[in-house]
Amino acid sequence: MGQTLVEKLLSEKMGRPVSAGETVVVDVDFAALHDGSGPLLVRLMNERGYQDDPVFDSDRILFANEFGPVPTREVANEHALTRRYACSHNCHWEEGGTGHVHAHVYEDYLKCGSVCIVGDSHTTVHGAFGAFATGCGSTDMVAVTRYGKTWIKVPETFRINVNGALPKGVYAKDIMLKLAGIIQSDQAIYKALEFRGDTIHALDMAGRLTITSMGVDVGAKAAIMETDEHTREFLKKFGREQDYREIRGDEDANYERVIDIDAAALEPMVAKPHYVHNVDLAKNCADQKVDMVFIGSCTNGRTEDLHVAADILRGKKVAKGLRLLVIPNSAAVYKECMQDGTLLALAEAGAMIEAPNCGPCMGVHQGIPADNEVVVATQNRNFKGRMGNPTASIYLSSPATAAATALRGFITDPREVM
Amino acid sequence: MGQTLVEKLLSEKMGRPVSAGETVVVDVDFAALHDGSGPLLVRLMNERGYQDDPVFDSDRILFANEFGPVPTREVANEHALTRRYACSHNCHWEEGGTGHVHAHVYEDYLKCGSVCIVGDSHTTVHGAFGAFATGCGSTDMVAVTRYGKTWIKVPETFRINVNGALPKGVYAKDIMLKLAGIIQSDQAIYKALEFRGDTIHALDMAGRLTITSMGVDVGAKAAIMETDEHTREFLKKFGREQDYREIRGDEDANYERVIDIDAAALEPMVAKPHYVHNVDLAKNCADQKVDMVFIGSCTNGRTEDLHVAADILRGKKVAKGLRLLVIPNSAAVYKECMQDGTLLALAEAGAMIEAPNCGPCMGVHQGIPADNEVVVATQNRNFKGRMGNPTASIYLSSPATAAATALRGFITDPREVM
Repeated sequence: MGQTLVEKLLSEKMGRPVSAGETVVVDVDFAALHDGSGPLLVRLMNERGYQDDPVFDSDRILFANEFGPVPTREVANEHALTRRYACSHNCHWEEGGTGHVHAHVYEDYLKCGSVCIVGDSHTTVHGAFGAFATGCGSTDMVAVTRYGKTWIKVPETFRINVNGALPKGVYAKDIMLKLAGIIQSDQAIYKALEFRGDTIHALDMAGRLTITSMGVDVGAKAAIMETDEHTREFLKKFGREQDYREIRGDEDANYERVIDIDAAALEPMVAKPHYVHNVDLAKNCADQKVDMVFIGSCTNGRTEDLHVAADILRGKKVAKGLRLLVIPNSAAVYKECMQDGTLLALAEAGAMIEAPNCGPCMGVHQGIPADNEVVVATQNRNFKGRMGNPTASIYLSSPATAAATALRGFITDPREVM
Repeated sequence: MGQTLVEKLLSEKMGRPVSAGETVVVDVDFAALHDGSGPLLVRLMNERGYQDDPVFDSDRILFANEFGPVPTREVANEHALTRRYACSHNCHWEEGGTGHVHAHVYEDYLKCGSVCIVGDSHTTVHGAFGAFATGCGSTDMVAVTRYGKTWIKVPETFRINVNGALPKGVYAKDIMLKLAGIIQSDQAIYKALEFRGDTIHALDMAGRLTITSMGVDVGAKAAIMETDEHTREFLKKFGREQDYREIRGDEDANYERVIDIDAAALEPMVAKPHYVHNVDLAKNCADQKVDMVFIGSCTNGRTEDLHVAADILRGKKVAKGLRLLVIPNSAAVYKECMQDGTLLALAEAGAMIEAPNCGPCMGVHQGIPADNEVVVATQNRNFKGRMGNPTASIYLSSPATAAATALRGFITDPREVM
């Protein structure tokens, strides 16, 4: 009998075979916090008198602020609080405006097959590197930060087989929205999603990260993939080829459920308000007028995503009355897209481009909709109020669908403009 | 007896000689409002039942939103309110994130020697084009918008003669800070400042706009300059050479006060907290540690300003622990600086670069300091609380001094790094 990818990885960490259902305490290879979880952690440390105690390994802890430039005095003070703690413990520290926490982690620190714990729900993203990665709250982050350990109930696994060539206009985001429609928001709670199949191996890392980032948005504890030459190339680009290793799954593991997706049959999708699993074909929503389009977030703000958007918008103008917002998700993406002309093409089409940060996805700043406005966003969540206004309606889509929508002013199947 | 530039211009508009002290009702050539004054105007129109009345000339009224991407639901709703009014009256309309209102006005609409009224205090900026330009409140803007007229008590004039070659490291901002030190905040209230002399004619339009923008910050009603080939070239760049005309001052006008500034004797200046006139030499503040540097605003965010900053920062990194924020002040500046590599050089040095907008100068969003932090900013005001935190200390400077400070982490005379 084989093991699921999560079982294999945690068995290796524990030095003995572990199985789904078992609770283990594992060593954490890398830990990170952002400006939501970081200040909570520091306050817990202070309350308990731990503030001067050493951290488990200052070189394996990152505090990265996601809201930059700082939107309010209150956020500025939260940053200042965390900065003092992080710097006095010699942890890695990133100011707001340099990217979201996950981009810092996978560009600069993450090793294939490691255990990565971040005080943020979208930590599932790192599973694209064959890592066991999950988010946890700041109380658990106290133990992670002090001892470099956390407890995990080894999750059962859903195996998601994706095979076939993606048609023109269809992207990784559409695979994940399709899956959200299948497993809804309640069927995969605390499960691991093991993505396998030739479509996954054909995806670049940008596409894989889109899928794993949204693992949590269908309730999963972790999302995980095998590694391959795309993984190696990505790490090499960031000078970290040595952090690559091959992670391969078994064929005969004990999967709680197996879901097959025929990539060749997919069409551009949207998630309609107000749930991620409320999915439909983009073409079925073609009469929906849109006020704002946001291309970015930890789900879709990578170089390849911005290339797709720029290819659709280059030499054209966004629809009159529609606001287009583009936020690259790391400083590396920002500079790469500035150097290769992508940002200029987007700016010439009428996009507002901001420094790398979380932006409006969480409704903190930079692109809050007005009352009753309709937004198409490439982010991961469309809950009521997610972008800072509970009367707004949010549709989720791929960058291609978002760019096509920006061009037309109505939700648009990107195949119509490609 | 000659006339001051303001008397000449208003005489021409009135078709009869007018003199300082007289109150006149003049035709307005161009009017604009932003997201501060626009919603107030619309509410006044609604309260008085004027909302469906025609405006004086929809082609000569601009509503330009300065806060973009939209920072809060409340601001989004203010934009929506103004958008409905502006669009239903066929006025010009610019979304937030496309630049500040004044950049839209002087890049796209302003004619030399015209009367320009904007619902914003820094309207004095347009005097760099030989225009009579001043800000007024939304109540007066109701009359401007409906009738295309406003009342003006013709101001007395201070003539400011600036002669001599600016030394290396000294810029237009230093001239204006020097002047602020001379006339303080209370000596030029409701006066016109007529800037003359070879230094002014040697300045590019970016430098002239820096000076005129801060007219209001030393209390003046208007700041005005002669036009010349620099003016013509600027308008030509924006396809509006036909809006150029030569404006020349007299030598024997009745000036209330004449101030002579020897440009060759100037050194890099700062305005220390919490007043614009609290000026000192940058080198006298060299022990001041700085947390954030902001390069932008309607006073200093033009292409030439960003070139100066990039020349200092290219190939280097901002000081550890210091946040550098750069906001170009129009879409044209943004694209020009992206095309010529300026933004890339700034990004590589560690700057956060935002879409063109007012940014943190007014403390609305994008770069609010934490408690007790110290900021060096190229904007026009350093009043307590101006940037959104009354415990912060703000120093004003030129882009060169700001960039040098960003490099060192302490207030730095730019001549030390050039």
